[in-house]
Amino acid sequence: MRFTHLSSAANPRFKYAKSLRNRRNRRKQQQILLEGERLIADSISAGFSPALFFFTPDAEQRHAPLLEQAASTGAQLLRVTPELFAQISDTISPQGVIAISAIPQIPPGNRGLALIVDGVRDPGNLGTLLRSAAAADADQVILMPGVTDPWSPKALRAGMGAHFRIAIRTAKTAEEARLWLPEHAIYFADARADLAYTAVNWTRPSALILGGETERASIIDHWQEATSIAIPMARGVESLNVAVAGSVILFEAARQRA
Amino acid sequence: MRFTHLSSAANPRFKYAKSLRNRRNRRKQQQILLEGERLIADSISAGFSPALFFFTPDAEQRHAPLLEQAASTGAQLLRVTPELFAQISDTISPQGVIAISAIPQIPPGNRGLALIVDGVRDPGNLGTLLRSAAAADADQVILMPGVTDPWSPKALRAGMGAHFRIAIRTAKTAEEARLWLPEHAIYFADARADLAYTAVNWTRPSALILGGETERASIIDHWQEATSIAIPMARGVESLNVAVAGSVILFEAARQRA
Repeated sequence: MRFTHLSSAANPRFKYAKSLRNRRNRRKQQQILLEGERLIADSISAGFSPALFFFTPDAEQRHAPLLEQAASTGAQLLRVTPELFAQISDTISPQGVIAISAIPQIPPGNRGLALIVDGVRDPGNLGTLLRSAAAADADQVILMPGVTDPWSPKALRAGMGAHFRIAIRTAKTAEEARLWLPEHAIYFADARADLAYTAVNWTRPSALILGGETERASIIDHWQEATSIAIPMARGVESLNVAVAGSVILFEAARQRA
Repeated sequence: MRFTHLSSAANPRFKYAKSLRNRRNRRKQQQILLEGERLIADSISAGFSPALFFFTPDAEQRHAPLLEQAASTGAQLLRVTPELFAQISDTISPQGVIAISAIPQIPPGNRGLALIVDGVRDPGNLGTLLRSAAAADADQVILMPGVTDPWSPKALRAGMGAHFRIAIRTAKTAEEARLWLPEHAIYFADARADLAYTAVNWTRPSALILGGETERASIIDHWQEATSIAIPMARGVESLNVAVAGSVILFEAARQRA
């Protein structure tokens, strides 16, 4: 297996990898860092070939099949020192493998179930929501301005490969998102609503807005046709974790559609 | 309002608070640290009065009503320097209020819905599960050996007050837990099962085992009567976040029981 050994932080490919730790650079280049065997293998099996593949001397044996696979799909293999690797890694105990891939462009499906995320700032929660949306057979996830970057290392880790299985789009305004959902009834998860999420007919084309930390008033203002729905809760519990609330509603939709 | 000012790390009450950052000490003393206005207010409104209440000079004005409330339920108020406070705080930007309370002893209800947690090591996931279990009107949460401490600052934070609303018990063995659930049908959430969670009759007394990181074989070995159930998932998604999986099933139970 042919590879190049890099030991200088001044190497342009290493500097490029490092630059992708920054959200703005990811957006500009439309490329991302995938860390760890699971995420890289998931992306390759979903048909997204890495452009560059960094590994530590340690990982050369341990992840040999993955290296072979990456090389066979056209990735340049780059062996780097553990010190350099630590500069592009996002984990405390790295596995020693990081790939650079293009941001997947997955077309939305036509099953009429969309998730709209507004105001979620925690990358773990966003990744978990993407994982649940893919599992519940939603068509697409639309992110409103201010939502944490879905392509950050933490969001990718929490997504467990969902990023390669479901369309993820960013909308500038509610109007733009509305154009993508011409036939959909719009629901807004709001703990104070009277209508239970189980009373909704989810077999019709539907979109669910999750507000996260966004002001309720701002959502209601921007999505005037949205119907507020709640998950009935016991014992004075005021709210659920946003990833939990979204998942519970999406799987109720999946249950009705099954 | 009367309070004592502490500025020495050698003060016995301060040292006691610091010792409660350790799980073993919490278990021995059966007392815990509650940090932040929300958690302290929740515990007081659920009827659990703090014994000690630490606050920074900054917080004296900002959280005056909470201080009054704590004092009126019998808490000793202790003003500490920001430097000392940082030593007992678990957050990067502390609100400046920490209470010491007894671990709540809440008797299990008799609605016949229990959650059994085995092998969850992430405190955020455990706290989220407690929050969902309380919201879905479960009776009790039983923790098996090896589960992360529910009374750690991170688990308390993710629980958002659920710790004061639902019985939390620790079982030494599956046999012991079984004695607490004499009439319950036992289900085990297992992504590889054939039976869908929606096909279960949750209106009967039921208990759900969440395996987290525990080996599947070990669960099946210890809970021989357990019926494996799965959440059907689309697009090659292999699993859900453990807190999400538990919540989706608990809210299906709540839906059927409504």
